[in-house]
Amino acid sequence: MSITHEDIALVLSDALQNEQLDEALATLKGLRPVDIADALELVEPELAWGLLTRLPDRAEVYAYFGPDEQVRLAQEFPAEVLAQLVSEMPSDERTDLFKRLAPEQQGRLLPALAKVEREDIRKLASYQEGTAGALMTSDYAMLRADMNVGQALHALRLEAPDAETIYHSYVVGEERKLLGVVSLRDLILADPSTKISDLMTEEVISGEVSEDQEDIARRITRYDLLALPITDGHGCLVGIVTHDDAMDVVSEEATDDFHKSAGVTTSVGNLKDAAIGLLYRKRVFWLVLLVFGNLFSGAGIAHFEDIIAANLVLVFFLPLLVDSGGNAGSQSATLMVRAMATGEVVIKDWLKLLGREATVALLLGCTMAVAVALLGFIRGDSMVALVLALSMVTIVMVGCVIGMSLPFILSKFNLDPASASAPLITSVCDAAGVVIYLYIAAQLLDEVSIV
Amino acid sequence: MSITHEDIALVLSDALQNEQLDEALATLKGLRPVDIADALELVEPELAWGLLTRLPDRAEVYAYFGPDEQVRLAQEFPAEVLAQLVSEMPSDERTDLFKRLAPEQQGRLLPALAKVEREDIRKLASYQEGTAGALMTSDYAMLRADMNVGQALHALRLEAPDAETIYHSYVVGEERKLLGVVSLRDLILADPSTKISDLMTEEVISGEVSEDQEDIARRITRYDLLALPITDGHGCLVGIVTHDDAMDVVSEEATDDFHKSAGVTTSVGNLKDAAIGLLYRKRVFWLVLLVFGNLFSGAGIAHFEDIIAANLVLVFFLPLLVDSGGNAGSQSATLMVRAMATGEVVIKDWLKLLGREATVALLLGCTMAVAVALLGFIRGDSMVALVLALSMVTIVMVGCVIGMSLPFILSKFNLDPASASAPLITSVCDAAGVVIYLYIAAQLLDEVSIV
Repeated sequence: MSITHEDIALVLSDALQNEQLDEALATLKGLRPVDIADALELVEPELAWGLLTRLPDRAEVYAYFGPDEQVRLAQEFPAEVLAQLVSEMPSDERTDLFKRLAPEQQGRLLPALAKVEREDIRKLASYQEGTAGALMTSDYAMLRADMNVGQALHALRLEAPDAETIYHSYVVGEERKLLGVVSLRDLILADPSTKISDLMTEEVISGEVSEDQEDIARRITRYDLLALPITDGHGCLVGIVTHDDAMDVVSEEATDDFHKSAGVTTSVGNLKDAAIGLLYRKRVFWLVLLVFGNLFSGAGIAHFEDIIAANLVLVFFLPLLVDSGGNAGSQSATLMVRAMATGEVVIKDWLKLLGREATVALLLGCTMAVAVALLGFIRGDSMVALVLALSMVTIVMVGCVIGMSLPFILSKFNLDPASASAPLITSVCDAAGVVIYLYIAAQLLDEVSIV
Repeated sequence: MSITHEDIALVLSDALQNEQLDEALATLKGLRPVDIADALELVEPELAWGLLTRLPDRAEVYAYFGPDEQVRLAQEFPAEVLAQLVSEMPSDERTDLFKRLAPEQQGRLLPALAKVEREDIRKLASYQEGTAGALMTSDYAMLRADMNVGQALHALRLEAPDAETIYHSYVVGEERKLLGVVSLRDLILADPSTKISDLMTEEVISGEVSEDQEDIARRITRYDLLALPITDGHGCLVGIVTHDDAMDVVSEEATDDFHKSAGVTTSVGNLKDAAIGLLYRKRVFWLVLLVFGNLFSGAGIAHFEDIIAANLVLVFFLPLLVDSGGNAGSQSATLMVRAMATGEVVIKDWLKLLGREATVALLLGCTMAVAVALLGFIRGDSMVALVLALSMVTIVMVGCVIGMSLPFILSKFNLDPASASAPLITSVCDAAGVVIYLYIAAQLLDEVSIV
């Protein structure tokens, strides 16, 4: 868009300060809820709240506010205004908000809601974060198998205002048992007298409430679905996950893995707004762990002190050799972690991939060995060059094998493969690298001094 | 699903070897195209091809084959069979396939296609990879503003078989000028006599053919769209990008950035099928660069040779200090790269974020300094501990500032911020770290020896 949210916010502030509500509303005319939310978040809270409640699609706009704004706003509203707003929200976002509210606010809100909404919130809030249940909405379109197309379209017209999507309707029987799915496309193409039971697809792709949200998102992507029906343990329909929620999951999970790859533990939310303390806590763990992990490399160095003293040239290449293992290993780990995240690679592929990884590592190691041997020859002698070449090949291969195996080992123990982060690989490869390097040096360079 | 694609493939192979085509078809009954494709890819090509052409949704199944399978298959088919299949494919996937075919195959295919399809392919194939034009499909539903709802629904029933989605129809005027959008939901809720011009939304969120596919995907996510209309320079509708294609883009781009973060240049496709040579080429660049990058750290070490010889204890901590800068820097870079990729952070935020980053780095550095000083005191003396502490704080701060700034600098020069990879940061921070560490040591430890 040409005009920014800052511009809109300025216009709004002016209008509202002069109590020209209609002007303010006119400014927002034709803007999408997410844009209105972004603009309103920049306006003086007191002014924004008055305007929000007068917007036709206020619930949608409110749903697009950041979590903190939503809660702050919720505290200011009188209970019935909040209840009104909340009852207009999609059931999944309504539940997310409810979970964020302080207990006393929850107590204030619940009585003001209609019984059906109260129970809906209680039910949805009971599902564990990160599962299909916590992601799904209960605002879906339902049909009965014995309806004909005409009746179905009539029913959908009634459900349309509340349902998140009417483009796919779910056909249910006794106790909401999921029997089939029918698309609005098929409905408007079919003859009005056709029975839904003859029109519906009976092989429904669905998910279960307890499933991981990543698996749900992956299924929606794989089958290019608009929404995935979610059933309880008994195959009864309890909600749907829509494609846009799945897309958010895909993006969030990618961000999490991305951060983990650099040893940033768990999500930091929007980086721009992240507090210093939060960023510190998220990052310090691996860094400090690495410091102590170095006890091992240090011990290794101490053990080979004499050979170092006798051949100080070895020190020139210590950082290089140590890093090379870590870098090559991180590459392997990153490739594996992402492939496991997108489902390209599963745990049983490990052995199959190990052989290929070793070959790639050998090639990489040899190439780097040539390069480092060159430097070694310039700075030292042919013997040093040999030590460096041998060490490089070994270290890179060890690094790659560790890097590619670690994600598998982690997920074998039901840990997140993405925890196989660069810092972790680096610490492990450091110790290994130092020992390999100096051990090889000790063997070869000792012999030399004897000759 | 309980039964795997391997199971299905086995059953198919048996049936096909005994020429029981109907049995084979029965096995695939009720399976989704993507699942059929996965199973068929495991079956003997000759057998699979015969079956594919007899499937009702063969075009969809074929579209789900891997790029290489598609091309291999295309070579075997007689021109008219291929043309038949291709004409049934969605226009965007049809074009992708066409681009992959060898020139002679393209020459074989084109004449067998209907004129309109030929031109459609030529047009779509002309757009540059990675742009909206290359991503979009021309199978969209179009309406005229002067139609009424009844006529519109009738028109959609006719368009439905070919359009990728009829849930949003685009209202166009002269020369396909995009005037508005109307959802099928609104259409079935509206009175049949309502004019489309009164029903349609005139503020259409759209994209331009030349836009980057990442921006297109981001817009679809932001506004939770089912599809985004794509216009040429003059605001005329030329195609749509659907939500499922956008979702694939989001996932691909995440994978690319993820790989770049570990210095794996550009995509390797499906990791499981990636060839050894490919993996080698994608990974070797940064690793070898790092080796030569080490010339600087090496020079640094050489410059301080005496102080090292006099205080060998310094060597114990060399790998640690060098890594710490690289790790902290990689964290900063990763946070920035991902935030820029998701659009949370833009280039003008740099200065704003720099201050905060420095503070976080200072805290991280101090924490790590305490840890390393402890080790230094155990292994050396209080003076060594001091050297280590000072060096650690400085190195971590330098590392973080480099790490967070590099992505901004890169995108300032229109390079991909994701190229600020761990190996790059490591090489830069290595050299800086060595010099800082040994310089500080030279200052402090010299004094000591004088005393």
